[in-house]
Amino acid sequence: MNPWKELRKIDHEVYLLKHVSSLLGWDQETYMPVRGIEERAEQISLLETLIHEKIVSHATREILEKAKEQSNEEQFEIEIKGEGHVVPFTPIQRAAFLREWDRRVERACKIPSSLVSRMAYATSVGQAKWAEAKKEASFELFKPYLQEIVILTRELAGALGFKETPYDPLVDEYEPGMTCAVLSPLFEQLQNDLVPLFREIVSTSRVDDRCLHLPFPKEAQEEFGRRILQAMGFPFERARLDVSVHPFTGTLGKDDVRITTRYNPTYFPTAIFGIIHEAGHGLYDLGFGDEIRGTILAEGVSLGIHESQSRFWENYIGRHRSFWTYWYPILQKEYLKDLSLVPFDTFPMSINRVQPSLIRVEADEVSYPLHIILRYNLERALVEDSLSLSDLPAAWNDGMEDLLGIRPSHDGEGVLQDIHWSMGSFGYFPTYALGTLYAAQFYFSLLKDYPQVLLEVEQGKYGTIVQWLREKVHTHGKVFTAEELCRQITGSPIDPGYFLRYVREKYLYRFS
Amino acid sequence: MNPWKELRKIDHEVYLLKHVSSLLGWDQETYMPVRGIEERAEQISLLETLIHEKIVSHATREILEKAKEQSNEEQFEIEIKGEGHVVPFTPIQRAAFLREWDRRVERACKIPSSLVSRMAYATSVGQAKWAEAKKEASFELFKPYLQEIVILTRELAGALGFKETPYDPLVDEYEPGMTCAVLSPLFEQLQNDLVPLFREIVSTSRVDDRCLHLPFPKEAQEEFGRRILQAMGFPFERARLDVSVHPFTGTLGKDDVRITTRYNPTYFPTAIFGIIHEAGHGLYDLGFGDEIRGTILAEGVSLGIHESQSRFWENYIGRHRSFWTYWYPILQKEYLKDLSLVPFDTFPMSINRVQPSLIRVEADEVSYPLHIILRYNLERALVEDSLSLSDLPAAWNDGMEDLLGIRPSHDGEGVLQDIHWSMGSFGYFPTYALGTLYAAQFYFSLLKDYPQVLLEVEQGKYGTIVQWLREKVHTHGKVFTAEELCRQITGSPIDPGYFLRYVREKYLYRFS
Repeated sequence: MNPWKELRKIDHEVYLLKHVSSLLGWDQETYMPVRGIEERAEQISLLETLIHEKIVSHATREILEKAKEQSNEEQFEIEIKGEGHVVPFTPIQRAAFLREWDRRVERACKIPSSLVSRMAYATSVGQAKWAEAKKEASFELFKPYLQEIVILTRELAGALGFKETPYDPLVDEYEPGMTCAVLSPLFEQLQNDLVPLFREIVSTSRVDDRCLHLPFPKEAQEEFGRRILQAMGFPFERARLDVSVHPFTGTLGKDDVRITTRYNPTYFPTAIFGIIHEAGHGLYDLGFGDEIRGTILAEGVSLGIHESQSRFWENYIGRHRSFWTYWYPILQKEYLKDLSLVPFDTFPMSINRVQPSLIRVEADEVSYPLHIILRYNLERALVEDSLSLSDLPAAWNDGMEDLLGIRPSHDGEGVLQDIHWSMGSFGYFPTYALGTLYAAQFYFSLLKDYPQVLLEVEQGKYGTIVQWLREKVHTHGKVFTAEELCRQITGSPIDPGYFLRYVREKYLYRFS
Repeated sequence: MNPWKELRKIDHEVYLLKHVSSLLGWDQETYMPVRGIEERAEQISLLETLIHEKIVSHATREILEKAKEQSNEEQFEIEIKGEGHVVPFTPIQRAAFLREWDRRVERACKIPSSLVSRMAYATSVGQAKWAEAKKEASFELFKPYLQEIVILTRELAGALGFKETPYDPLVDEYEPGMTCAVLSPLFEQLQNDLVPLFREIVSTSRVDDRCLHLPFPKEAQEEFGRRILQAMGFPFERARLDVSVHPFTGTLGKDDVRITTRYNPTYFPTAIFGIIHEAGHGLYDLGFGDEIRGTILAEGVSLGIHESQSRFWENYIGRHRSFWTYWYPILQKEYLKDLSLVPFDTFPMSINRVQPSLIRVEADEVSYPLHIILRYNLERALVEDSLSLSDLPAAWNDGMEDLLGIRPSHDGEGVLQDIHWSMGSFGYFPTYALGTLYAAQFYFSLLKDYPQVLLEVEQGKYGTIVQWLREKVHTHGKVFTAEELCRQITGSPIDPGYFLRYVREKYLYRFS
């Protein structure tokens, strides 16, 4: 049999199984009865094992090698069950398909399954202990469990292999191709410019944001959110909006993407900006081109690029004054009559209020990257064994003081605030900041391509933006690397200058 | 390795995968965005293929044979991942476990996979064509597709093998051990006695059921339904209630059972009795004993026994006068104030109104089995090739006239009303009537064991009933056959006499 046909078949099966696993996860966070968790963990573990076995199997590796040998042959028209006639790959897509399968197989084969199960156990216990420790605001409670996770993480980095630092293969998991050699100077430049900028913004602006704290029933918030989604072109025949404790986006099928939010009945930005943020992720996963749909290439390039999409919509569009030119009167008239006495100008000021904050997920868009830089420095030091866990809480608090000028009064609002380390997700945090930087860079490219686009935003129209993002980012999936994509769209590699310019223009020149 | 350990491991994996498949099905009917259906069909088909491959694999068959050779050995204490220490099987459970695995492997090996995929295709197209034909009320539109399904069904019966009629292996799929040699005399006796009884009830009762057609908002119906579920001991930490077009019960985990209903805003019995009915199914699947949980034995014995549980709750308890002694005042006071002028007696009369009806799912409990007998006779004749599809609509209409005294005016309310044949589910219908008969038989046994139980029902208490059903039926899962179970509980095999007695007592002696 033609090895390309075989590889496409295996690829599609893995694609389907990954979506089944996503459904198991989505359901767990949204509708599953509480006691379902015991078996659900087993179901997910079995599914993931089946996927892993398929990837590392001798048969798959053999087919992959054969396909690579035939990678220059004429394109085959491949028919996959249920998909009917499949649009053939272009040569570039074919090469990317092999590159991604190579990467998938290589990584899967490198990680011993004993390490996978030890990590699964340690992080499962770790997450429970973290939740307990956070509640008690006691890092000491969590420390021995985090220690175990850090040790396993170093083992994982060793198994994956690295040249310069064990942190490199970890960040590469989430941001393929990214290394500390790139990240560190990037973050240093960002920090050097952003810290004084942030202080200047804080010292020159005083915002009264009481208008955001009005009572606003969940149902009305949801209806308002759905209306915004509709305007963004979020396709409800291929997507859903639900509720979960931690908002997320799950991709359960090529035409089935689900976002969640949470509702605070007296602070509606939580839900509304959560919805806009997740919709940014969702539109990405719904926008892959026909040739790559249903394949390994139908995924975001990297978590950084994925986050650029959510940040773009949440901050660059959703928090833009033009956005609310359209929506604020609707909000006032139809959803929140208490706002009728609040003048328009107060509103964009309020949702863009900048102030030092201890908690990352509540941070404004200006200080947000500083929260990430702190975590990057600390987790890198932990993995490199240049920082001991006993010194971690103090290092955290010192870092907060250096960067943001405030100091946590206890570990619950300090080192214990995020779940990521308890999940073993070292290397994940940087992608949040990268997303912010990419988004700024894309934003300026959009304005260059369509200088009038904000006039459309003032009218509640986002067609140009959606079309532009689809064409520039979404349609390509994983065909290009993050670096290639960034250069194609903006003409330059990732550069913090755009974000810094954006912050300066928005907060110092307009609002001051 | 110990073959029992291996077999238990395979068994548990199949158990988990079947629940994953159930989640895919449940989600499709409740929350999935419409366009998700294309990939969902592929996901389900892949999952079912993986399950099938695991069952028919050479390795599984070898392990099963080895386990059978060791079936008399000492009991092993088997540890299964995530389950911790597993309670050992009793010798009876061990034998049942092997019996069920034998049956599973044998049936799976007999059906050629080409037939499975031809049937999947024919029924997938068939269901769409059926829906279209039903809308147009034109049997001719559906006929060629049904013809193909009937031909494949005969092929399926041939592959499974039979002694007397090809219908036997079909009904055996849903009601293991049941044959036409048992069914036909049973249904004949039922029909002979029930037809005149039904006519007598209809002719002697005149019920004004306008009180059931009051406006009753969905949300309030749901709240009332949840309250009844709570009283029935339906455990929301292990179960859910949702909405779907066709109500059903899905078992997604050992502690995760989900029921659905649908709401008619001006006819509340649809939702309320739907909820009580599905809760009967749900309590069964939540009540398996500790030793058999997580195994092939943790399933209903047969669809007839499963249906006995839903019928029992819906009709024997839910439509009982005593049930409403408790709930009617609550309904009047808290949910439907419009009922305040309707005297109590009118209510049980209304929900038990008996009248000829063309549509099975709307039929009263007295005429319901006659709808089933008609379908049984027709589908058996189709499979045996003694009735041609061209003669089917007329045979349907004649049968309705014979049994119920009414004649459909078009195919939409006649031969096209049910989805089952378009799904290839020949042999399924009889289990609905068997469930009714089993339920009546169990009901009299319960009253014998607990003569005062209806006094508890009058107080809204169902603890004795739940406990009794758990002990007599639920806990055993598939350990005993349906016939064994029926004899154990009632002292006799299935016998339509109980149902006939129930109908006579309820409708002629009390209501007349």
